[in-house]
Amino acid sequence: MVKIAVDAMGGDHAPSAIVRGAEAAWGEGIAEPVLVGDEQSIRPLLGADSKIEVVHTPTSVEMHESPSSALRRKRDSSMNKAYALHRSGEVEAVVTAGNSGAAMAFAIFTLGRIQGIERPAIMSLHPTARGALALLLDAGGNVDCKPGHLFQFAIMGHVYAKYALGIERPRVGLLSNGEEETKGNELTREAHALIRGANINYAGYVEGTDVHNGSTDVVVSDGFVGNVALKVSEGVAEAITTLLKERIGKSFRGKLGYFFLSDVFKELARTVDYSEYGGAPLVGVNGVSIICHGKSTEKAIKNAIGQAKDFASKKIHVHLTETMREYTNKES
Amino acid sequence: MVKIAVDAMGGDHAPSAIVRGAEAAWGEGIAEPVLVGDEQSIRPLLGADSKIEVVHTPTSVEMHESPSSALRRKRDSSMNKAYALHRSGEVEAVVTAGNSGAAMAFAIFTLGRIQGIERPAIMSLHPTARGALALLLDAGGNVDCKPGHLFQFAIMGHVYAKYALGIERPRVGLLSNGEEETKGNELTREAHALIRGANINYAGYVEGTDVHNGSTDVVVSDGFVGNVALKVSEGVAEAITTLLKERIGKSFRGKLGYFFLSDVFKELARTVDYSEYGGAPLVGVNGVSIICHGKSTEKAIKNAIGQAKDFASKKIHVHLTETMREYTNKES
Repeated sequence: MVKIAVDAMGGDHAPSAIVRGAEAAWGEGIAEPVLVGDEQSIRPLLGADSKIEVVHTPTSVEMHESPSSALRRKRDSSMNKAYALHRSGEVEAVVTAGNSGAAMAFAIFTLGRIQGIERPAIMSLHPTARGALALLLDAGGNVDCKPGHLFQFAIMGHVYAKYALGIERPRVGLLSNGEEETKGNELTREAHALIRGANINYAGYVEGTDVHNGSTDVVVSDGFVGNVALKVSEGVAEAITTLLKERIGKSFRGKLGYFFLSDVFKELARTVDYSEYGGAPLVGVNGVSIICHGKSTEKAIKNAIGQAKDFASKKIHVHLTETMREYTNKES
Repeated sequence: MVKIAVDAMGGDHAPSAIVRGAEAAWGEGIAEPVLVGDEQSIRPLLGADSKIEVVHTPTSVEMHESPSSALRRKRDSSMNKAYALHRSGEVEAVVTAGNSGAAMAFAIFTLGRIQGIERPAIMSLHPTARGALALLLDAGGNVDCKPGHLFQFAIMGHVYAKYALGIERPRVGLLSNGEEETKGNELTREAHALIRGANINYAGYVEGTDVHNGSTDVVVSDGFVGNVALKVSEGVAEAITTLLKERIGKSFRGKLGYFFLSDVFKELARTVDYSEYGGAPLVGVNGVSIICHGKSTEKAIKNAIGQAKDFASKKIHVHLTETMREYTNKES
């Protein structure tokens, strides 16, 4: 079975939710998790007959520690040890719900970047109105980007959509304030000129409405805009759910209607629930790294382990390495 | 009654939807619209006994004309004539669903900017989970901004929330990728330092989730990010509506549930329907200018006329002029 290092100490509900998620993944035969962290905290949470491997580390990264401080002072943390296990080939992927800035820093430091990728990016997988998944990157790692970074994000998105989602010619769009060539800001205009030269199915500028309507498989933006886009989506879904709940609870008629529609509402809740999708892959490093929401529950961790196994099996980072080689060879 | 110039030639459904919207506003005693545009197209659309004033203009701005070309070649357009009527005091506000770039250009050219405002901004009014309205600016006018522009947007938002929405100390937030001071990009970090010095209830960085949760009355961003945020919101609301409709229509049980919840769904549809809110004020010019969605219907135009009348009566641009005077005096 695929072995996956799980940072047991990262996340708002660590270590308990993390340990339970790992046990669930193991129990369902999804993968073989290796729990990394403080053994004294982890052991009591495991069943007496649990066969899950625990790798002890003396420290862990705090949720609000700065990435640079973590890099200097927390080399022996559960988070970095997980990446070290991946680097040495003992595991095929890493899952962490810890400090995402530190996770990016340690992944880059310990696994290294793929040649041709200057800035690894966090990729979000989100549902669209057509039922399929779509990708957005960068979802928050790199707030100030250069045009070349967005070009690399476009290639990374193409490779992930092709090999992870199985879309033969994924449609890649650059997030902008309108579809016309006259739109965009300084950054997107230069990036647009670069991406047009890539050997991908580039759709040009797309708008905020395209993120969730399924018209585009990959949406490219800098990490600032990407983070705002995703958090706005979360906020709207929450606002609509709140509004529906309030109104439905107000009357007998509403409650009766809810009774008949409960399956529909449950499906909606599942569709907008981030934990169904696990976590966000950090793309562009030499390996598979899934970064989960800080508030990840047992289910989110279990699904992230499943996602990590899927990406590791499909060897997407190897495909990305090969694809980037074509571009770096071209340049030289 | 308050007289309002309405650009009869602007919008995907012009002139018919515009004329009907103006007649509805007049019929309901909301305001006295003055229709500006090609008299030969407008007259046949008006009732035989209609008393609505029509001001003839020989040309109109095309929907995809560039603002600079419109400025050079379309001074005698319905759009610019509407602003000229406002400038000369014949009307108290302008409503247009035409080319929004050209509308910004003509409003600035003909009405002029308020002293201290370098970049007038488009302001969106949108519903939140708490039921109240919130403001976001810039919603799309200025894609590449300097920190000083965001500072001015913050003051403009404060003044509109205070005098248009009646919030005594509106909470103003700067849209960012996280609430901590370490977050943000180059632009927001400099803007953050400036806005802290303003005499407003500044909440610092807010996130995408705050746009619709009602925690913040005014959300400030550059026009690129603002446009993406609003179009993503539209997209999510549409995706959820599509998903619900599809699932509900699939079974008898679903249809039965819908029967009991039809009022709730109608209320939701109203809440997310832009046409309920009319249009977006262009803030920072010497006057009241409401820019409507290109696809505005009769109802959207009627509501925009109501909004224009409300802003004109509350003399918000006068309050803004006075407030900006405090800041420009301070600087000199």
